[in-house]
Amino acid sequence: MSRHARHWKHTPIANPLRARLNRWLFDLSSKAGRRTNATLMIIIIASVIIGMFATVGHLEARWKALFYTVEIGIITLFIIEYIARLLTARRPLAYALSFYGLVDLATLLPLLILGDANTAIRLLRVFRLLKLIRYLRALQLFIASLRDVFEIMAVVISAISIIVLVAGNLIYLLEPENITNAFEGCWWSLVTMTTVGYGDIVPHSAAGRILASVLIMIGISTFAMLTGVISVKISHSLAYQRSCPACARMIAQEFSYCPYCATAQHPPRQRDDPDHTPPS
Amino acid sequence: MSRHARHWKHTPIANPLRARLNRWLFDLSSKAGRRTNATLMIIIIASVIIGMFATVGHLEARWKALFYTVEIGIITLFIIEYIARLLTARRPLAYALSFYGLVDLATLLPLLILGDANTAIRLLRVFRLLKLIRYLRALQLFIASLRDVFEIMAVVISAISIIVLVAGNLIYLLEPENITNAFEGCWWSLVTMTTVGYGDIVPHSAAGRILASVLIMIGISTFAMLTGVISVKISHSLAYQRSCPACARMIAQEFSYCPYCATAQHPPRQRDDPDHTPPS
Amino acid sequence: MSRHARHWKHTPIANPLRARLNRWLFDLSSKAGRRTNATLMIIIIASVIIGMFATVGHLEARWKALFYTVEIGIITLFIIEYIARLLTARRPLAYALSFYGLVDLATLLPLLILGDANTAIRLLRVFRLLKLIRYLRALQLFIASLRDVFEIMAVVISAISIIVLVAGNLIYLLEPENITNAFEGCWWSLVTMTTVGYGDIVPHSAAGRILASVLIMIGISTFAMLTGVISVKISHSLAYQRSCPACARMIAQEFSYCPYCATAQHPPRQRDDPDHTPPS
Amino acid sequence: MSRHARHWKHTPIANPLRARLNRWLFDLSSKAGRRTNATLMIIIIASVIIGMFATVGHLEARWKALFYTVEIGIITLFIIEYIARLLTARRPLAYALSFYGLVDLATLLPLLILGDANTAIRLLRVFRLLKLIRYLRALQLFIASLRDVFEIMAVVISAISIIVLVAGNLIYLLEPENITNAFEGCWWSLVTMTTVGYGDIVPHSAAGRILASVLIMIGISTFAMLTGVISVKISHSLAYQRSCPACARMIAQEFSYCPYCATAQHPPRQRDDPDHTPPS
Repeated sequence: MSRHARHWKHTPIANPLRARLNRWLFDLSSKAGRRTNATLMIIIIASVIIGMFATVGHLEARWKALFYTVEIGIITLFIIEYIARLLTARRPLAYALSFYGLVDLATLLPLLILGDANTAIRLLRVFRLLKLIRYLRALQLFIASLRDVFEIMAVVISAISIIVLVAGNLIYLLEPENITNAFEGCWWSLVTMTTVGYGDIVPHSAAGRILASVLIMIGISTFAMLTGVISVKISHSLAYQRSCPACARMIAQEFSYCPYCATAQHPPRQRDDPDHTPPS
Repeated sequence: MSRHARHWKHTPIANPLRARLNRWLFDLSSKAGRRTNATLMIIIIASVIIGMFATVGHLEARWKALFYTVEIGIITLFIIEYIARLLTARRPLAYALSFYGLVDLATLLPLLILGDANTAIRLLRVFRLLKLIRYLRALQLFIASLRDVFEIMAVVISAISIIVLVAGNLIYLLEPENITNAFEGCWWSLVTMTTVGYGDIVPHSAAGRILASVLIMIGISTFAMLTGVISVKISHSLAYQRSCPACARMIAQEFSYCPYCATAQHPPRQRDDPDHTPPS
Repeated sequence: MSRHARHWKHTPIANPLRARLNRWLFDLSSKAGRRTNATLMIIIIASVIIGMFATVGHLEARWKALFYTVEIGIITLFIIEYIARLLTARRPLAYALSFYGLVDLATLLPLLILGDANTAIRLLRVFRLLKLIRYLRALQLFIASLRDVFEIMAVVISAISIIVLVAGNLIYLLEPENITNAFEGCWWSLVTMTTVGYGDIVPHSAAGRILASVLIMIGISTFAMLTGVISVKISHSLAYQRSCPACARMIAQEFSYCPYCATAQHPPRQRDDPDHTPPS
Repeated sequence: MSRHARHWKHTPIANPLRARLNRWLFDLSSKAGRRTNATLMIIIIASVIIGMFATVGHLEARWKALFYTVEIGIITLFIIEYIARLLTARRPLAYALSFYGLVDLATLLPLLILGDANTAIRLLRVFRLLKLIRYLRALQLFIASLRDVFEIMAVVISAISIIVLVAGNLIYLLEPENITNAFEGCWWSLVTMTTVGYGDIVPHSAAGRILASVLIMIGISTFAMLTGVISVKISHSLAYQRSCPACARMIAQEFSYCPYCATAQHPPRQRDDPDHTPPS
């Protein structure tokens, strides 16, 4: 976040009603904002779970009317939320084109195509869960603090991909009567290597089982290494923590909000920023 | 535990027989108390396992009389234990209304409804295992010392829930002929992500298998991270240990009892507690 | 190992041939001893694997004569080894009654009952693998250095046993038509909790699947904690290492032999042992 | 790598075209070299995946001509690459006889036997993936830095092998009607112990299930220990890192190339090498 963006974010809004709605809808550091957002979060999860009930065959006929009503109600609520966000955002266009704005818009689409395109509607219902990302600040920050770990995972995932390709092709050579094609071989490799072991494809020949054994040992070692590297990285990042001034819990340096109480953190690197005035 | 509660706990009991029984039944720090409790613990486990034998179809007829007799014997013993606890507790009403008191009472209920309600009886038999919590002090303290870890687990479980919801809905969209409804999709997601891999539901289409692959990789990474975070937290909590005066083993600061020998620990924060006289 | 035992172990043997055989058979710190033992180790593994071939139905008839001959040869070799060990041991009776002596004797029994008791013979063939324990010094020491870890594992295994008992009884209550008896429920609990997930028993009802989900989450958390605790313990034990004087690799304090080169280590606690003369 | 070899590697090539091609094909530390190699890497992966499509039964007929053309094109490219490498290598014979040279040659063989030996061709297509090893420098170095870990893994793998042998023979004794032979028992042991749990072989008797339970607990403990040891080793190796002068990331001391940006590292032990002139 650039210094400019931060300054703009704290420009006061003239209209008091708009200012209050803005705080309710956007400001996760205020108590009112957290309450509104927690309510919306529960409604989103409830609506997704209700949508799932509609997929249960023998229930659909019985509860159809209810589900339909609830669906209309939730979409109406989201339309109101979307309009309110558009009206009260500091820069409505910036909001409308932002990731969150597009997700909010996408979740309204089922209304427009309601009636026939069942698959499309179901897909859009799942989109609603993306709205949750906004509210999962703790999770977001947790993931952000593990950026180092993702580099290691990229190496591990490339290694796994190549092992899966090699083993998948080899098992197809060894048991062509059991494995239909090389892609199925790769699917089996992944399922075996990660110890999922569905059992839909199981090697029967001695050679296939030896390959499987080697693959399992490689898989377990790889994931043991992955766990080891992640442990070390996490240990290192936790060693450079600071205390949250609001709740006194230890948090990572790079967090700009406390993951426990959502209090904004004063980043230590702003010390060399002479014209910055901290937000009250 | 407040200071008041601790003082009350060490008030001497006038009646010597009641005092001895109280020590036997409640005082895990005395040798006699540990012996009584270990015996009761073995009886509880034995009674649950005997109860399990009664569920084996072809055995039931043959051994029915024996199981019935044993059951009556064990319930009689528990009634005696319950009455003894009530009579010898420092504050009988407080015991009767405590968690342990209610569990002790609940395990006696099978006697009252013996004869017909088989399912209810079996459920109450399982309740007996809850009585074990009392005796598993080491485990309790181990869990208590990991309170920090539970916060992280809450974040991880929320993350997993959302991934399971998204993946469950997506797999239902991708393979509607294979997965009956969206809940079944979520069940498959969880079973796949955690590498359990029962194999009751297995994706057959290319898209479904790609989704499964992504899900497996996310699952393994998430659990590797969880292990990493827990390792670091445990490492940190072990770094601030002190030695148990009774058995000389290292234990965490926040333990008020040694998890190995159940000796009460003199908490370091009592130093600023002038009117406290340590128990002999 | 007491100081007395160590002194007796280094008493010289008068007869030079017996001394040499003793070194070959018992002294893993000499080059000749390691060579003899490595040879015996390979023969043991080979004999077990040959014994396994004899269990393959359609092969048995064809190779029967060969397997029989090899079996006789190996048993003869083990008889010679046993007699040699008895004759050259410093204290033959102590050897004969030691764990290793009894295992050596047990592996000879198939000869005596050769001809009919097939199952007994197969069982005794497996006993041969116990002979390997003698040669797996590195492994033995690795395990010995993890004594602390075993205490934690005992707590974890008790916790798992109780969770398995509770969940096994609950699943039997929830899906009696699917799970035959409460023991099968416990089997399912263990297979689910440890993410093995054979798929022989899979819950079908919503309640059963919710129980399974909770069980999986508990299982994964428990094993993540186990891994964490073990990591920390290993880290601690590795922090107090010393360098092997022969191969310069870092080894744990409590090792009395280097696990890499089998050189005997001069234990640091012998410093306060005035009448001890170190072995040459 | 000996000092002599290093000196020879930096001998300038007289012919400027040959020098440029040499840099393109062999010098991963130059930008042009990395670009050429990344392109070849993508072509290799693409060719393997195209080869996998050819194994899909119902697709083969339709796309056969296309696959055949692509295959010819890729093999032609690899022939050109092989000749270019031979001509521009500093020591062509050394290259031809090196591991990479032999792999490059092996991947050309399908051309020579094109037409009939389908299995051989498929096998050789998989060989192409070995060519990738050249480009996976980051992975190679990551693995190289874990040499210590491999020693521990060797101990763990020996331990697992013996447990698998013992458990495999025992399960065959316990459930001979379920498990065809002792090898199948070992296969089941490995699949169970590593929590893969295909479910192709599942114990049905009480004794078999108790054995499985013990095996699962041993397996999980072993892999928890493996993860713990690896974590500690990685932690130790990361503690002695240095910063890469090119990308400023922390890398292990023993790396001679930065695993992130492939910049050659000036090894600290060259300080005592007076006649060495560092490469520009």
